[in-house]
Amino acid sequence: MATKPRLLKGFRDYLPEIMTPKAAMLRQVEATFQRHGFAPLQTPALEYAEVLLGKYGVEGDKLLYRFRDLGGRDVALRYDLTVPLARVVAQYAELEQPFRRYQIGPVWRAEKPGPGRYREFLQCDVDITGSGDVLAEAEILAVAAAVLRGLGVGDFRIRLNHRGLLDACLRRAGVTDPELRAAALRAMDKLPKIGAAGVRRELAAHGIGGEAERAIFEFLAAGEGGEEPADRWERLARLFRGDPGGEEAIGELRRLFALLDTMELAGTVSLDLRIARGLDYYTGAIYETFLVGHEEKGSVMSGGRYDGLIGAFRGQPVPAVGISLGIDRLFQALLELGLVERRRATARVLVAVFDDTTAPAAAALAAALRSRGVAAELYPARDRLKKQFRYADRKGIPFVALRGPDELRSGMVKWKELATGREEALPPAALPTGLGLGGD
Amino acid sequence: MATKPRLLKGFRDYLPEIMTPKAAMLRQVEATFQRHGFAPLQTPALEYAEVLLGKYGVEGDKLLYRFRDLGGRDVALRYDLTVPLARVVAQYAELEQPFRRYQIGPVWRAEKPGPGRYREFLQCDVDITGSGDVLAEAEILAVAAAVLRGLGVGDFRIRLNHRGLLDACLRRAGVTDPELRAAALRAMDKLPKIGAAGVRRELAAHGIGGEAERAIFEFLAAGEGGEEPADRWERLARLFRGDPGGEEAIGELRRLFALLDTMELAGTVSLDLRIARGLDYYTGAIYETFLVGHEEKGSVMSGGRYDGLIGAFRGQPVPAVGISLGIDRLFQALLELGLVERRRATARVLVAVFDDTTAPAAAALAAALRSRGVAAELYPARDRLKKQFRYADRKGIPFVALRGPDELRSGMVKWKELATGREEALPPAALPTGLGLGGD
Repeated sequence: MATKPRLLKGFRDYLPEIMTPKAAMLRQVEATFQRHGFAPLQTPALEYAEVLLGKYGVEGDKLLYRFRDLGGRDVALRYDLTVPLARVVAQYAELEQPFRRYQIGPVWRAEKPGPGRYREFLQCDVDITGSGDVLAEAEILAVAAAVLRGLGVGDFRIRLNHRGLLDACLRRAGVTDPELRAAALRAMDKLPKIGAAGVRRELAAHGIGGEAERAIFEFLAAGEGGEEPADRWERLARLFRGDPGGEEAIGELRRLFALLDTMELAGTVSLDLRIARGLDYYTGAIYETFLVGHEEKGSVMSGGRYDGLIGAFRGQPVPAVGISLGIDRLFQALLELGLVERRRATARVLVAVFDDTTAPAAAALAAALRSRGVAAELYPARDRLKKQFRYADRKGIPFVALRGPDELRSGMVKWKELATGREEALPPAALPTGLGLGGD
Repeated sequence: MATKPRLLKGFRDYLPEIMTPKAAMLRQVEATFQRHGFAPLQTPALEYAEVLLGKYGVEGDKLLYRFRDLGGRDVALRYDLTVPLARVVAQYAELEQPFRRYQIGPVWRAEKPGPGRYREFLQCDVDITGSGDVLAEAEILAVAAAVLRGLGVGDFRIRLNHRGLLDACLRRAGVTDPELRAAALRAMDKLPKIGAAGVRRELAAHGIGGEAERAIFEFLAAGEGGEEPADRWERLARLFRGDPGGEEAIGELRRLFALLDTMELAGTVSLDLRIARGLDYYTGAIYETFLVGHEEKGSVMSGGRYDGLIGAFRGQPVPAVGISLGIDRLFQALLELGLVERRRATARVLVAVFDDTTAPAAAALAAALRSRGVAAELYPARDRLKKQFRYADRKGIPFVALRGPDELRSGMVKWKELATGREEALPPAALPTGLGLGGD
């Protein structure tokens, strides 16, 4: 009895017409990471559950794919690439600090599947450990912006905030209970979606009103008017005068923006005091990235500073900062915006097979084309020529080359361009060279 | 309390010095796949267990990482990339046949870990479905040979056999019981390791002796003398005269070798009647690949024809053939043979940071170098210059660039080559261009 061919809910197959442009995108992302001095790291999909547990907050723990392996070990599929990095930095004493790496790989979260929300998705992460200086943030934001520019995504904005500012805001508002703090941050994060009235309602639902509410909105207002940065820093400084945590965060952000200025990132990165980020482990700068005019597609690249996470493995803290490109979400957005094209074939030429007798000559032609750097497919079956031409046409292969009995006699190759129908007889020496996938 | 940073047994971290050359290798493999007209497919790590069960034989089923997900579904991590391909071909009616794809991704097997045997490893597969013709085998062997040649692995040999010949041999030997057949194949497969006497002992242990044993050795002898192929085909033809399965297999192999001849693969692929392949699903040609002089490292690229597997999902058979590159094993072999070099950095230049005041100028220099196509790292912390130079040296970054107060005054960049100690002052326009990772 046949097994029903089916896919788990929340999981995807990427068929070639989609995976071909996605693979090209990944190659480009990787090249940008390397040009910025990040080297690849690879960690396993499976980790001891205790490595992951407690690092993402209570909600994160619930979303782990966790099970007992055949040896009875309590294991789980990785939830992100950041905690495995923290484990690696803590585990290998030979890794000299500062340490910078990129990692590209799938992660798994047992979320309720929905539009754009999957249980397996690819992350592309860059991180720097061993530096608490904002030079590290500047490097991370530089590579992030270069990745998006390189992919031609159009206008985008990196929105930046600082956990130190949020902490100072909530201290000033008298919201100190951890659960209330989390609720307040979630509410502030929703300001663009639900408006000030919505935020007020949500705060009130947690008993946050009066002076506390007023202090929170005063903070949010202080970040506005992104065009006069000096004024904005002044307002924030007035707000947090005498609060060491708040003053330190302001100082860090001012230094960071000075670096970004010289890297031509000033217009690309802007302060946004609402950004909160869900994960527990962030301690400093945090950021999200939106395609301008398509903010509803969500953040395509997010991250921040997490100075406590490596210490959770090593006992002594190692500062760290990074960003994660949600390539599946970005790819989907670019596909919908028409900035990426489906592509069913990697070959530029189909070598057709006339019959059994001439098949070896066809195979030799395919080999010759490939050694000239031409991406070529040998049609792998003995079908009628008409079917072979139709196959090339449907797959979007632009040329068909053929050596039938006539061509074998004349020593030529029949070369046909499908779009125009133009056919010519080429001597082997006149065959093209270097006809590969664009951008390869 | 700190979590102990540890890795599951049988799993590996690839640190940057190893992963950097491995990533370069993967990019090259992918480019070769594409030049041969294979397009990428990606399937999930997790499948319904029933998709995988019963496809690899009893032993394979036992090695699955299988568990219940939070929704109670019986799921498993993929064991290879072939069964997921069969599922995909059966599931999507829109995939036109013949269909060719490559897939690169990890697979999981709960094997007993040992030297060179891991529970997670990367496979790079190419397959063609929808063709029962040996043109498909020729395409698969052509891309396999091109991959190994492209990687510069030195001399290698693809050893080819055919399940049809093995079946005919065992029919002729009167070994028809499925378990005995499997035992006989396992014994034959060991001939290079344990010699003829060892094979005889192993056959005898399963009660296979006398006429049956003689028939098996007559078959093995018929394949010898690879230098006179015509004689060899004659011997095999005599052995299997009147056995339609055997005659068909010989015919297929003769046609295949004629194709390989014209693709300049005749010396690279040779008949080896001992090759049996463990997996249940093979039905026709089967092959393994060895590095000449390093056969003890095992097969680095294996596969074959599996005409029944897709039918296990769709009811009606779709022929298929493919090969799988065990890139981890190959990479390890090349590393041991000194054909691959460890590499700790992707950057070619470290931009050092003199102090806080000049940090923005350093950031600007890093940005300028990158926009000239130079792989550059901005040192991300405020450490002493001596420490920064030592960092570059240890990581194998060949150049250090610096803009200190003197350089800012003169408008120059200090440029130092670490290997020679040579230092010069360059005007920004004289900075190098296109200084990337070799081969990128």
